[in-house]
Parts: sequence; structure tokens; C-alpha cells
Amino acid sequence: MKKREPSGEDKLIERFFKPLASYPGALALSDDAAFITPPSGYDLVLTADTTVAGVHFFADDPPDTIAKKALRVNLSDLAAKGAAPIGALLAISFPEGIEESWIANFARGLGEDCVSFLCPLIGGDTTKTPGPLSISITAIGKVPAGRMVKRTGAKPGDLIVVSGTIGDAALALLLKQRMLSGGLGDLNKPQAAELMRRYRMPEPRLALAPLLCEYANAAMDVSDGLVGDLGKLAAVSGVSARIETAKIPLSNPAHDAIAGEAALLSTALTGGDDYEVLAAIPERRFDAFAEAAGKAGVPVSRIGTFGAGDGVSVLGPDGNPLSFQKASFSHF
Amino acid sequence: MKKREPSGEDKLIERFFKPLASYPGALALSDDAAFITPPSGYDLVLTADTTVAGVHFFADDPPDTIAKKALRVNLSDLAAKGAAPIGALLAISFPEGIEESWIANFARGLGEDCVSFLCPLIGGDTTKTPGPLSISITAIGKVPAGRMVKRTGAKPGDLIVVSGTIGDAALALLLKQRMLSGGLGDLNKPQAAELMRRYRMPEPRLALAPLLCEYANAAMDVSDGLVGDLGKLAAVSGVSARIETAKIPLSNPAHDAIAGEAALLSTALTGGDDYEVLAAIPERRFDAFAEAAGKAGVPVSRIGTFGAGDGVSVLGPDGNPLSFQKASFSHF
Repeated sequence: MKKREPSGEDKLIERFFKPLASYPGALALSDDAAFITPPSGYDLVLTADTTVAGVHFFADDPPDTIAKKALRVNLSDLAAKGAAPIGALLAISFPEGIEESWIANFARGLGEDCVSFLCPLIGGDTTKTPGPLSISITAIGKVPAGRMVKRTGAKPGDLIVVSGTIGDAALALLLKQRMLSGGLGDLNKPQAAELMRRYRMPEPRLALAPLLCEYANAAMDVSDGLVGDLGKLAAVSGVSARIETAKIPLSNPAHDAIAGEAALLSTALTGGDDYEVLAAIPERRFDAFAEAAGKAGVPVSRIGTFGAGDGVSVLGPDGNPLSFQKASFSHF
Repeated sequence: MKKREPSGEDKLIERFFKPLASYPGALALSDDAAFITPPSGYDLVLTADTTVAGVHFFADDPPDTIAKKALRVNLSDLAAKGAAPIGALLAISFPEGIEESWIANFARGLGEDCVSFLCPLIGGDTTKTPGPLSISITAIGKVPAGRMVKRTGAKPGDLIVVSGTIGDAALALLLKQRMLSGGLGDLNKPQAAELMRRYRMPEPRLALAPLLCEYANAAMDVSDGLVGDLGKLAAVSGVSARIETAKIPLSNPAHDAIAGEAALLSTALTGGDDYEVLAAIPERRFDAFAEAAGKAGVPVSRIGTFGAGDGVSVLGPDGNPLSFQKASFSHF
């Protein structure tokens, strides 16, 4: 009679991930699958994003921020679609030789965000890989039936609106790349740290989700660069877009970096990793939207207008259209 | 005015994966997320599994079978939980230098299975990785509300039942490993090919799903080896399990391989990758279950009985309990 010994994988799940699985249908991660009893009157919204060490984050980033970023990029998608999180599935591939303390810190960070964003773990898979650490998360949310906010739907005359500030993460990445050859303009250490914090831990704008359902004709999250993502939204909506760089919300460090090196404006506008909401809001409803967003703690800015036709134009500080180097458009 | 050029990633999705996304809420993969309008009276069942080249399949396996295996291991979980597929999200990381023809064949294989198993693509993510090809699939199914078949619930006296045949994939793997040093016993080429087909393309037992809801007290799919997985099911159900090797269904090639080399029985029973259903069926209902399963085209076999207490015992051909090498238990 052989008593079953739990495997290494089972012990790892039991110790580090089961505490994150508060959702009843997750069955404490002890089954092959989870179940969700769909809330009546809602559609479910599903999104999946993979983050890979050396591609989407640095392998030596703190493990808790790696976990948070992996979850947040998915929550950012839910937010932009008007959805509130229900839970997430984590499929993680650990490289050889991963330390248990690393996993503990990863799980701690993930757990903090599961609580903060009301998004418990409901399932997943752990495996080993000969390659780099890789994290695929599928997030599930809910939105009132028929009300998911789509990319299509922007109308000529709608305002182009973004949340938060744009360009911080892209500037952080550039700053890190330049580390050995000097910094970005005259940024001081706290400013540089603020940019890096934005790269490592985007802020999913879940507080905006119900407002997007109510006010937005279309929305998406900005993950591959503002100009490129705006182009995607405009294209599927069948409209053109025109924004003014003077109106684009910049953080204090981003503002100072660009003031010291004008070419960084292009980095900020096309670099990606913002995870802010980009939305089409009817002009007559913008004030009410902005007021409600402010009350929800999320600053929003009107940066331009959708029009007839197609294409994206970006008016620079002098009022003339900017053109971007091909390289800046590599994401789209 | 800059017209938007689709990115390489967008083109790839448009060309190869959009045709697989027939689910209306998938929005032709043109949005950040998909939506599902949950069917009334059903729970949703969610499962995620990652497969990595060099770990779960051979990098030089045919791309269409790699795709099919990645999907099928998830569908196997749905089947064992009594769920019918709704759709799947594919998060795939391509290694550098992947050929477009490879992706085309992968997508063709995946598409064939999306159709065969009524499981359209509803979303996902594509990215590059410096590591090996890695595929994370999240499958979503539906089951009558409250009726997901769990691992818990097996009762003393229930029969231990498996679908199909056991051990083929594990023997295929061993055969491949021994390729340079000779084969398995006297297996001929067609027999070896049949085993390899089972390794590369498991058969998700979706036809059993509604029958499991109706007849099974507990179920799971056998992915990490019959003996180990039986141990997991017995442990969470709080019962013991006793099986007889003479009753374990073997394919013709597996039978011949074991006849030629008795030690291969252990490989078959503990090697994994079977993706057959393991279920606890009340004895008085077994005949009806087996008849319905047969009509649905899935052979099922009673291989033992659950009892009081704990642990798993395996009675060998001579009626004495078998013990397995520690190494054979590495998965659990």
C-alpha cells in the first residue's frame, strides 16, 4: 500500500499559490479546472497576455514587480473594455535553478495585487522551461451584458482622451539602456526612479471601467505606444485621428527629460508600456466623464479629436505635423 | 497624415489565426479582449496548460500535431470535468527565426481541431521569446450549473474506470529515447508509429463529458501517469484505491511491448501523457455508463475499486502488490 507523496509541483502550488485562490470555484487549485457561475445580466470578458524575461521585463527585476506587471497588463485590458475582474489563471514556466525565495516573492507580489484588484487566482499551470521565465495570464472580468467597450465605435467629432500620463515607461526603458553611457538629460535620481516604477508596475485603470461603459464610444489600453495604438483604434473605427503634443499629459520626470532632449518626445509617444486608457468620448459628454473620472481618482486628458477619413496626425509644439522615424513605429 | 501600416504581429494574426476565431465575441481577434455571453443555466469551466518545446513535445514534431496536442491537453481537462468546449485563448511565444511555413502548418492543425472539437479561438497573444517555443492555452467550457465533475467525491465501493488505453504515450517516449540503442522488444514499425501518434495527438474524451456529469462521483484526466493521478484523486476524495494490472486496457503495441519486456509495465502505468479519463463510477451504475460510453464511441474499462482508508495499491499479474521505482513516481 503506497501512500501518495505530493510532488514538488503540488507542494509549490499548495504553499505559494493556493493562498491566492480565494475564489470558491477555484477549488483551492486542487482540481484540473475551475468553475465560474456567471453573474446574471453580465457578459464575461477574457484576455490573455504573456510576459517573458528579457522581452517584457528584466530578469533581475524584483520578483514581486514581475508578478504585478504580468497581472496588471491583463487587468489594464479588462479596464479598457469596461470590465471588473473576476479572477485570473496563471500559466508560469520557471527556468532551471529558480530559487524558492524568488517564487515566494513572486507569489507575495501577485497575492498583493490579487487582493488590491479583487482578482483572485482561479487556476493555472506551473512548468519548467529550458528558456527564460515566462508568464501567461488569462484574466476574466464581467461587464453588463452587451456593454463591453470595443475598439470600434469612435465617431468623427469624438474627443481623443487618455488617462494618467504617457511615455514614462518608454523613457524608463531608454534610461536603463543608457545607464552606462549617461542618463536622460538632467533627470535626478528620484525622477529616474519614478519612471522605472512606472515601467515595472503599470497602474490598471479599473476605476475607469464603469465610466467607459457609460461614456465611451470606443476604448483600448495603450500598450504598444500611443501613436500606434491610436492608429489601430482609428483604423477599426473607420475614422481619422489628430492629436496635439502640447495636450499630451506628461509626468514631471517625462516633462523634464523631453525639455532637456526634444527627440525624447518621439520615444514617449511611440515607445509603449503605458497601460493607460485611450478612449473616444463624445465632446458634449466629456466634462461629465472627466468629473466622474476625477472623483474615481483617475486624471483624464483630452488630447485631440477623431475626424472623417483615415490616418493619424500628430501636431508638434509648433503646430506643424510631426513625423516619426520608422524605428519608432516598429510595434505596428 | 500618416496611414497606419499593420505590424508584423497584426499581419500574422490576421492571416493565420483570425480564420480560427469564428466565435462572435472574439471580434475577429481585432480587439484587446473577447466577450462571452454565458449560456443560461450553465457554469463555465476554465483550465490552462502550457506546453514547451523540449519538455512537453519535441521541437521537430510536426507543427500541426504540436498545435493539436497543446489544445487537446486542455480539452482533455474539460472532458474530465464534464464540460463541453466554448472556446480557447492561445498565448504563444515563438522562438527567433521561426519560419512562416511553420506557423502556417501550426495554425492549420489548430484550426482543424477548433472545428473538430467545436472550440473556436476566442483570443490570445503572440510574442517572441529567446527561449524555446512555448504555448499556453486557456480553454473555456460549459457544464450544467453546479454539475462540474470534481476530483473529490469518489466513495468506497465505487469502481475505478478509465477510458481508452493506458501507457501508449509513455512507451512512445521511451521508444524515441531508445531510438539509437534499439527499439522496444519486437515492436514493428506500424506499432511504433501507433504509439508515437498517441504521444503526439492525445484524444480528448469530450464524448464522455455529459456521461461523467450523469454517472461519475469524481473524475480527472490522466496526464501524469495513471498510478500517480489515481493517488491524487483518491487522496482528495479521502479514499483508498486498488487496481489490477490484468484489467488495465492496453493497446496492441503496448501489450506486445510489455510482453517482450515486463519492466515496461511500470512505464505504462506511471509515465503519463495518456489524456484518458479516470473516473469513480458507482458499481450499480457501471453497466449503464459503459453502454452509453460505447454508444458515444469511447471504450471504458473497470480496473479496480475505491475503498476506505488511503493509499494506492496495484496488484500485478500474479496477484501480488507491485512496487514502483522511485523514479517512476517522479511526477507526483
